[in-house]
Formats: sequence, C-alpha cells, structure tokens
Amino acid sequence: MPKVGIVMGSISDLEVVKGAKKVLEGFGVEVEMRVLSAHRTPVEAARYAQDAEKNGIEVLIAAAGKAAHLPGVLAAYTTLPVIGLPIKSSTLDGLDSLLSIVQMPSGVPVATVAINGSENAALLAVQMLALRYKHLADKLREHKQRMAQQVLEQDKKLQEEVIS
Amino acid sequence: MPKVGIVMGSISDLEVVKGAKKVLEGFGVEVEMRVLSAHRTPVEAARYAQDAEKNGIEVLIAAAGKAAHLPGVLAAYTTLPVIGLPIKSSTLDGLDSLLSIVQMPSGVPVATVAINGSENAALLAVQMLALRYKHLADKLREHKQRMAQQVLEQDKKLQEEVIS
Amino acid sequence: MPKVGIVMGSISDLEVVKGAKKVLEGFGVEVEMRVLSAHRTPVEAARYAQDAEKNGIEVLIAAAGKAAHLPGVLAAYTTLPVIGLPIKSSTLDGLDSLLSIVQMPSGVPVATVAINGSENAALLAVQMLALRYKHLADKLREHKQRMAQQVLEQDKKLQEEVIS
Amino acid sequence: MPKVGIVMGSISDLEVVKGAKKVLEGFGVEVEMRVLSAHRTPVEAARYAQDAEKNGIEVLIAAAGKAAHLPGVLAAYTTLPVIGLPIKSSTLDGLDSLLSIVQMPSGVPVATVAINGSENAALLAVQMLALRYKHLADKLREHKQRMAQQVLEQDKKLQEEVIS
Amino acid sequence: MPKVGIVMGSISDLEVVKGAKKVLEGFGVEVEMRVLSAHRTPVEAARYAQDAEKNGIEVLIAAAGKAAHLPGVLAAYTTLPVIGLPIKSSTLDGLDSLLSIVQMPSGVPVATVAINGSENAALLAVQMLALRYKHLADKLREHKQRMAQQVLEQDKKLQEEVIS
Amino acid sequence: MPKVGIVMGSISDLEVVKGAKKVLEGFGVEVEMRVLSAHRTPVEAARYAQDAEKNGIEVLIAAAGKAAHLPGVLAAYTTLPVIGLPIKSSTLDGLDSLLSIVQMPSGVPVATVAINGSENAALLAVQMLALRYKHLADKLREHKQRMAQQVLEQDKKLQEEVIS
Amino acid sequence: MPKVGIVMGSISDLEVVKGAKKVLEGFGVEVEMRVLSAHRTPVEAARYAQDAEKNGIEVLIAAAGKAAHLPGVLAAYTTLPVIGLPIKSSTLDGLDSLLSIVQMPSGVPVATVAINGSENAALLAVQMLALRYKHLADKLREHKQRMAQQVLEQDKKLQEEVIS
Amino acid sequence: MPKVGIVMGSISDLEVVKGAKKVLEGFGVEVEMRVLSAHRTPVEAARYAQDAEKNGIEVLIAAAGKAAHLPGVLAAYTTLPVIGLPIKSSTLDGLDSLLSIVQMPSGVPVATVAINGSENAALLAVQMLALRYKHLADKLREHKQRMAQQVLEQDKKLQEEVIS
Repeated sequence: MPKVGIVMGSISDLEVVKGAKKVLEGFGVEVEMRVLSAHRTPVEAARYAQDAEKNGIEVLIAAAGKAAHLPGVLAAYTTLPVIGLPIKSSTLDGLDSLLSIVQMPSGVPVATVAINGSENAALLAVQMLALRYKHLADKLREHKQRMAQQVLEQDKKLQEEVIS
Repeated sequence: MPKVGIVMGSISDLEVVKGAKKVLEGFGVEVEMRVLSAHRTPVEAARYAQDAEKNGIEVLIAAAGKAAHLPGVLAAYTTLPVIGLPIKSSTLDGLDSLLSIVQMPSGVPVATVAINGSENAALLAVQMLALRYKHLADKLREHKQRMAQQVLEQDKKLQEEVIS
Repeated sequence: MPKVGIVMGSISDLEVVKGAKKVLEGFGVEVEMRVLSAHRTPVEAARYAQDAEKNGIEVLIAAAGKAAHLPGVLAAYTTLPVIGLPIKSSTLDGLDSLLSIVQMPSGVPVATVAINGSENAALLAVQMLALRYKHLADKLREHKQRMAQQVLEQDKKLQEEVIS
Repeated sequence: MPKVGIVMGSISDLEVVKGAKKVLEGFGVEVEMRVLSAHRTPVEAARYAQDAEKNGIEVLIAAAGKAAHLPGVLAAYTTLPVIGLPIKSSTLDGLDSLLSIVQMPSGVPVATVAINGSENAALLAVQMLALRYKHLADKLREHKQRMAQQVLEQDKKLQEEVIS
Repeated sequence: MPKVGIVMGSISDLEVVKGAKKVLEGFGVEVEMRVLSAHRTPVEAARYAQDAEKNGIEVLIAAAGKAAHLPGVLAAYTTLPVIGLPIKSSTLDGLDSLLSIVQMPSGVPVATVAINGSENAALLAVQMLALRYKHLADKLREHKQRMAQQVLEQDKKLQEEVIS
Repeated sequence: MPKVGIVMGSISDLEVVKGAKKVLEGFGVEVEMRVLSAHRTPVEAARYAQDAEKNGIEVLIAAAGKAAHLPGVLAAYTTLPVIGLPIKSSTLDGLDSLLSIVQMPSGVPVATVAINGSENAALLAVQMLALRYKHLADKLREHKQRMAQQVLEQDKKLQEEVIS
Repeated sequence: MPKVGIVMGSISDLEVVKGAKKVLEGFGVEVEMRVLSAHRTPVEAARYAQDAEKNGIEVLIAAAGKAAHLPGVLAAYTTLPVIGLPIKSSTLDGLDSLLSIVQMPSGVPVATVAINGSENAALLAVQMLALRYKHLADKLREHKQRMAQQVLEQDKKLQEEVIS
Repeated sequence: MPKVGIVMGSISDLEVVKGAKKVLEGFGVEVEMRVLSAHRTPVEAARYAQDAEKNGIEVLIAAAGKAAHLPGVLAAYTTLPVIGLPIKSSTLDGLDSLLSIVQMPSGVPVATVAINGSENAALLAVQMLALRYKHLADKLREHKQRMAQQVLEQDKKLQEEVIS
C-alpha cells in the first residue's frame, strides 16, 4: 500500500493540512500525519526525514508558514520527493511562505504548490505514486473526469437558471 | 528506461532549460525536449500532454516565462506529474512566471521549482522516477553525497586560504 | 444583435461576473454565460473558443482567479478579442490573477481590466462592439454623460451638505 | 481603411512603441503616431481623444511609463476602446505603470496588455477592428497559423539538433 | 484667509477625506471640498484645476484610489502645489493608488503622503501655507508641541500603570 | 531671496540630487546643499532641521536610500515643509526608500516624490515657495509652457519623420 | 540584574509589544517600557537612547509601524544593540515597517525580527544578554527544551486522535 | 578573546561575506569562517551550531540567498544569537532571502540585517559582544565617532566645492 508522510510545522496548520489527508485517503493511500518543527524540534524533523524511506514513506508533504523552512529541511535529509505546502500564517498573505519554500538552491528541490493548496499537495503526491502504483493512475483519470463532470454540471445548471 | 519530457514555451527558454536535460541524462534518464507553446501551438501542446503517457513519458517538465501557462495547460490534459519551471523573461524578475505557475486552482497541481531552477526541476523528476526505478534512488543518494562533498571541500579550501 | 460570451473558470466567480452581464444587457447586448475551466474542462474550453466565432460570439470575457489561465487559453484558440477579468480568489489579493492574465507573451493578447472589474470588462466589450454597431457608440456616449451627471450630483449634494 | 492612433507620453517610449506601428502596418491598418503627454500637454491630449472619432480613429493605443496616466486620460475623453501599454521606464520594473493603467475605476475601462508588450497592443487593436473589417479577421487567422508554424519549425529544428 | 481645495475622485473617499477637512479647519484654513473624477468628469476636473488659483485656492489636496489619476491630472492643469492622498479602495491594499500618485514623470510633481493619510495631507497643506501666512507657522509649532505632549502623557500613564 | 536646503544622507546620493539643485537655481532660488546622515550624524541632522527656519531656509528637500529615515527625521524637528526624495540605492529598486519615506505616521508629513525624482522635488519646492514669492508663480507658468512646447516639438518632429 | 528597554512609537503598539515584556520577565530580566515617538517626541527619543547605557539598559527593543523609524533613530544615538520589531499598522501588511527597519545603511545596524514578532524580539534580547549573564544561557536551553516538548506533545496528541 | 562564527551557505556568498570578516577583525574579534549549507550539508551545519558554544563561538553570522534557511537552521540548534545576512543571489533582488530569514516563527529568533548588509552584520555582532567585553563598547563609540567624522568631512568638502 502506498504511503505518504504529511508533516506540519505547527499544530495551527492542521486546519489547512487535513484537506490533504482526506484526498489521499480517498485514493486509498496510507497517511502518516506528524507535527514536527524545523526550528523547535530540528533533531526530530531531521530524523523523521532520514528514516522516512526506511519506514515505508514514499512521498513527503510538508506544510509551513512564515519563514517556512520545514519542506527544505526535510528535503535536505532525504532523497524522497518533498512537496512543499505554503501556509498563510503571517500578515504577509503567504508570500513569505511561498518564497521560503519554492526558491530552493540548486541540488535540493521542493515541489511547491499554491498557498494553502492542500488538495493539490495531495493530488501531486498521488501523481507521483502513480508512477509505481498503476491503479492510482486509473483513479487519477477517474478523478479528472469527475472534476470535469462537476464543472459541466455547474455550467449546465447556470444555463438553466439563466433561461428560466 | 525512465523517460522525461521537457517542454519549453519558447526557444528563448532553451539556455535555462538545457541545464535540466544535462542533469537528467547524467542520471541515465531518457529525455525528450520540445518547443510547444500553450498560446501559439495550443493544439499541439494539448495533444503532447494527452499522448505523453502513451508515448512512454513518465514525468513532464514545463518551462515558461511571463504569464506562464504551459505547465498548467499540460497538467490539464494529463495525470502525469508536471513540474513547472518559471523562467525570468519579462521585466518583472520572474515573479509573474512563478505566480502563474504555482497558484494553480484545486484539482490540477503543478510541482513548482525556483525561478530559473532547471537543475532542481530535473532532480525533482528523478526523485519521482526513483519511486519506481530503484537504481535511481541509489544514484540520488550518491548525488547527495557528492554535493555534500563539494561543499565540504569548498569549506576546507576556505579554511586553508584563511590560515595561509 | 451583438453577442458576448462570458466564461468563468469556476462557479465561485459568478458573484463578481454577473456585474458584467447586467451592464451588457443594459446595452442590449446578447450574453451567453458559461462555466468552463481551463484546467478542469480544457477540451470544452478549447472547443468553446474555437467555435465562438461560428456561434455568433464577437467578444469573449473570461474571468478567473489565482493562476488565471482561462483568458489566455481561450485567446490561444480564437482570434476574437478576449477580455481578461482577474478575480481575487486566493490569499494574494488578486495580484497572482492579474499577472497571470496581463503578462501574455507576444502574439496572443488578452485585454486585461482591473481586479474584480466586471463592469469595466463589460463596457470594454461594448466599446469594441461599437466599432461595428453604431447604435452602441451612441449608447456609450449617453452612458458616459450619465456617469458624469452622477458625479456632478454627488458633488452638488456634498456642497449643499457642507453649507447647511 | 481602418485607422489606429498610437499615442506615447514621451518620445523616450518610441523604441518600444514602434513595434506596435510595424505590426499594424503589416495588417494594412493606417497608423497615426503622436507624442502627447497627459501631464505636460494635457489640453492637447484631451483634445486628441475628443476628436479621435471625428478624425477617423477607431482604436487608440496609449503607451506610458511610471505613473502612467495617459491611457486613462484618453479614455476619459472618448468612448473608443483605449489599449494601455505599460512601459518600463522607472526603477520599479514597470509594475508602477502596469498598476496605474490596469486598475481603472468602474466606468472607464482601459484594455491593458503586458509591460512593454507593443506587439500585443497592436494585435489587440487588429482583433477589435476585425469585428468590423472582415478581411482583418482572415489576416488574423493567417497570422495565428504563421506563429504556430514558427514554433513548430523551432521545435523541429531542436529535435534535429538533438539527434545530430 | 488661506484656502485649500480638497478634491476626491469618488464620494466613497469621503470617509477618509473628511479627516483632512477637520484638521484644516482647526488651523483656521478655509476649505472647499469637491467630488470631481479625473475619469468620469475630466472636463470639470481640468477646469477646476485651471481656475483654482483665480478662485483663491492656494493648495490642492486630491484623494483617489486604484489607478489614482486625479492628483496628477489636477497637477497637469495648475502650478499650485498638489498634495496626493492615496486611498485604499481596491483589493491591492492601496499600493496601486500609491504608485499611481507618487511615480509622476519629471516636470509635474505631486506631493504624496501615506495611504489613507488624510491628517498628514492637511498638515502638509498648512506647512505650505505657513510659508506665506506666518500665524500658521506659530500654530504648527503649537500643534507639534501638543502632539509631543500627548505622547509624553501616554508614556507617563504607561509608567504609572506598570508600577501600580 | 527664497532659499531651499537640500540634504542628502550620503555623498553617494549626489549624482541624483544635483538635478534638484540645478532646477532650483534655474528658478533663482538660493540652495544650500548638505550631507547629513540621520543615522551617522543624527545630532547634526537634528540641529540642521531645528535651525533651518532661523537660517532662512523655507523648504527642505531630503534625499535618502534604503531605510530612508532622513526626511522623516528632519520633519520631526521642524514645521517647515520637508520634501522626501527616495533614492534607489539598494537591491530593492527603491521600493524600500519609497515606503520608508511616504508611509509617515499621522502628525509629521513628508511630501514624497518619485524614486530618483530630483527634478520634481525641486519643482515642488518652487511651487511651495510661489505661495509667497509671486514671481515664482509666473516662472512656473512659463516653465509649464516650455515643457508643453518641448513635447509639441517632439510630436511635430515625429510626424515629419513619419511622413518623410 | 539584566535590563532591557522596550520602546514603542505609539501606544497603539502596546497590544503586540506586551508579549515581549512578558517573555523577558519570564527570564527574570528587568524591563523598562516606554512610549517615545521618533517623529512626535524626537528629542526625548534621542535622549533616551543616549542615556540608555548610563541608565543600566543593555539591550533596546524598538517597535514601530508604517515608516518605522524608531529603531533606526535609537540606533543612531547608542552603540547598544537595538532590536527592531516591525508592527503591522497600515494597510500594507507590515511590509512598509519591515523594510523601514531592516534596510539600514552601513554603519548603524538594527537587529530585525518578524512582523509582529514580539516574542522573538524578547528571546533575541535574552540571547544577547546571555553572552554576559551565564544563568540566562541555561534558561534559554531550558526554554528551547520546553518548546520542543510542546511540539512533541502536540505531535503525540495528534497521533492519538488519528488512531482513536 | 571574543569569537564570531561566520557561516555562508555557498562559496558564492564569499564576496559579500568577507566584508563582515574585515570589520570584525578591525575590532579585534576572532573570526571563524565556514561554508556550510543547510540543504547540502545539513548534518555538518547542525553539528556546527550544536558545538558552537563549546568551541568558544559567542555569536553566529549566517549568510544565505534565495530560500535562505541557513540562519534559521543554525538558530534551531543553538541558543547563541544568530545574525541573518540575506544575500541577493536569485532574480528576486534578495526579497526572497530577506523574508526567508526574517519571518521566523515564535521561539527561534534570527537577528536580520539588510540585504547584502555584511558590514552591519559584523557591527551588530560587536554590539552583542560588547555586552560582555567592555573594551568593545569603547571601540564601538570610537567607530561611531569616526563614521560621523567622515560624513562631516564629506559635508565640508561638498560646501567647499560648491563655493569654489
């Protein structure tokens, strides 16, 4: 069974982050969710990243706000793909988190998604896992079709409302 | 053999993009490099993304500048992971490209790396492929060690210079 | 009868977008309003733009938030003028939408208006249509006079309040 | 014969602006090019906009840098469509010009294109004119095909270089 | 008696602007307050600036939001000093108004104050008038002392609270 | 004879600042030019502002870069009008200087002009002085006409070049 | 006993600033809290900084919003370390305060912390004092452990909730 | 003898960083200069911070560009004061580095100086050390006087040039 580790830098990020968990579980992906701070528990965060592969984790999602170092710190200790999820948690609308996560130096990438984009962090993880787990590729195609269907239904409903 | 498609929105992006090709080939990954514009050749870009999986592509890297729609447009037509590489190509230092790529709406993620970060785009692709191709995981660990070694050598050289 | 297609990337944009519809109908312009996502229904969005001219559409208004690709994607598939309406829908105050819409590469323009500026999107469409439909030019002049009149009345009322 | 007025706020904008003139003339559109400053020759700028329609102008392109008021000032005096072309001419990378042009208040739109995007300003003008002049619509379709062809040739050339 | 004209681009700016009126009247300066839009009533705005000196106005304060052209437009038609007061009235926190007002091209200055800084707009007007009206210089010194006194009292009160 | 004090925070600002001196002297205004740092010579900067009025200074122009405190510090010690001239002198394009100067708290205004806008700083000083010195008002009107004349000549020359 | 002076530019900053006082007192550091404005009480602010060392102050924390000059002004008058605490108090999300504080010119540093980061301002002061007062170093280590403990407990609680 | 550790994330930062070394040595402070990357040599960077106090380091200066995590990572492993020096090393003018360094979460402060402000990083370190080493306080006062003297000489020279 594919497995993703979701790490958040602060329990206050949980509200946004649990959107990712829900999506992943909808795809039948096992999720491990942790609170580990790059700044307050650096030893534990480092160890978590170092042991992730050994513990069966295949993709990491790291959510953090402000000077969001968590995704980059995890990426420093593992060669697993790390998805960075910037959280709006300061006065600066999340731009600080976004730049702190996406502007990584050469050699240590973080796959960054939109500010507060927890659903996309999860979908990106599934896309990565689908390289190995072919049934996930099928599920992603179905998910894409369902999304399209939803938009088409909204569109249809809008046409009907306009007419009536 | 693992295979990555690198697509750039304009031939003027080539100078940055070829850094990604070099890294990927260093890892023994097959690379297909294309110029396809989301705005000037939308049909071909869409078809490329639709056929990518069928053609053996496993990860897409899409580079674009200004209102950089190419990564998002490819992601709309495939469930393969798409890595977005923002290119500085306008007067705005690449911030326009970055936001146009990273701020994707829910449902269609793009894995964004730093502005002009072609090396990291490639490494991220290898990390994804390593989920399936285990020899790549080994190579990534070696690469990580070589990088560390380089920094340690720079450090050592600096100490020696300071002393002498 | 002149005809404008208003397309929004998400039903959540409707609240802003319907301001445009109201203005257009006030000018006697036929309006077709659709929900079509550049990312979730790319095929339908492309087809809509490709068929727009054939279906009697003369100007397109496309509203989108975040990495707002919809206006650019429509413009890729048609030579009709496309008006881009950036919607504030992320944490970034609409700056992401604005840059994603306005910074189009050479060859495929999008006529961009202010963030959430639905009324101006509609008026710009009428100005374009007035090149062909001369009665609209007259109506635009009347509208301009009415606007001026409203400001002058506000001014007059303010003077009276200050004096009394 | 269709006619466009190109107005620039300063002769120093000419280098960028003449790209628009060239494109328009390539489409067989008559171009009138003027230097008129919203701040240094406000009376002449106002009069130019007021008389534009009478003088056979059908679309205005206004280029300006810094606190770029020229497009908005022209739009205040005419109901013709005004295309705003932000010029990078201060230390701020053109962001000041862009915001000064695009963020117009309700009632007086300016169709804004990318910073220094003179070619797109011209193409947008042609798209507007094509609503009335049907031969321009044909030319726009040909232009779109030529652009696509150029990208496809770049793509082909790149493939050949890679192989050889 | 010294006289200042306060012009706002929209009646919605009144809430901020009336702070300026109050300060000016506190200094015994006559105030004329008008709603005149650079975009919706350009003729009246131009005429107001042209006639301002003749009508006994000595300093103009112009408040505007978004693409705030009003201060620059007034300055184009008069050689009286124009104080620009950027109003936060869009989604962009007033940065658009600030840049649209302060980044004036060479030759036509606007004396810009902080976003929503109506009190400072008024004080700056009084400082200018005090060059001619010496009793205003005395009042400004008294005002400066009163301000200092207020801060010192806050400071004293804080000390007492801390101790008790 | 009217007199303006120009103060710069660093001798490196001289290149920009001397544009202001030239304009002022062109208007027959006496200029005193000083290098005084708010941070490195705070006592002298404070004393200069405190004594400015006594020494016949009527308007102050203060130029500074980065965290540009000089204009605000001078304004704290005098009730003369202080014109703030933001200098681009860091990596941030002058945005830091602009915000540090223009966003003054209530009670102590600084009349801010564009980044590197030395000519406008000088013209604004002349506009202020013209409230008292009526011959300056005449000169400003002549200057405004000369500026208009220059633009009209550029415009005429452009027309001739286009025709020939 | 170690002593820190906390100065705020306005009593409205108190709500944020008192977080710093609480932390410092928790470490057994004596705190002196003052309201002193760089702009409204410049003489008192200067004197406070000049006398700080003499009065037993060892570190200064200065909080200010908008064009936040207070930290830099204090730093100009003392060689004690000054910690700058940017306060969000305008429409610009605190970016103006941050840049006004951090971008100090060479020669006069201000140790800047995050916008509204009062707790970190206090901890930084304690870290500085710990260079001299060794018992503070011990307390800082304990504090670091307590912080880690809190995160680990949150993490543990989250695991338990997830399981149950 | 007081001792400062200067750590840079990349040897490419050396050009800026050596300014700090020079200032520190001018104050007679022992300097240890290291290249240690938070991302490429995380173990060594962590160990360096953990052992810093034991090795006689009293203050750390950490320079880094882009998503500059080094200062925060060091601060996570030590209670010594860490001075963060943002380096301009990407296309974003150093704003990414600044926000990545200064916006630290509660509990782990980094004392941030201006972008590329190596001299101030060094002076801040000396100010901290002067809390313990009283001779440094004397030297700082002398340095402050020398700086003032330099500005006064520039000022004097400017006066003489203007006169002659």
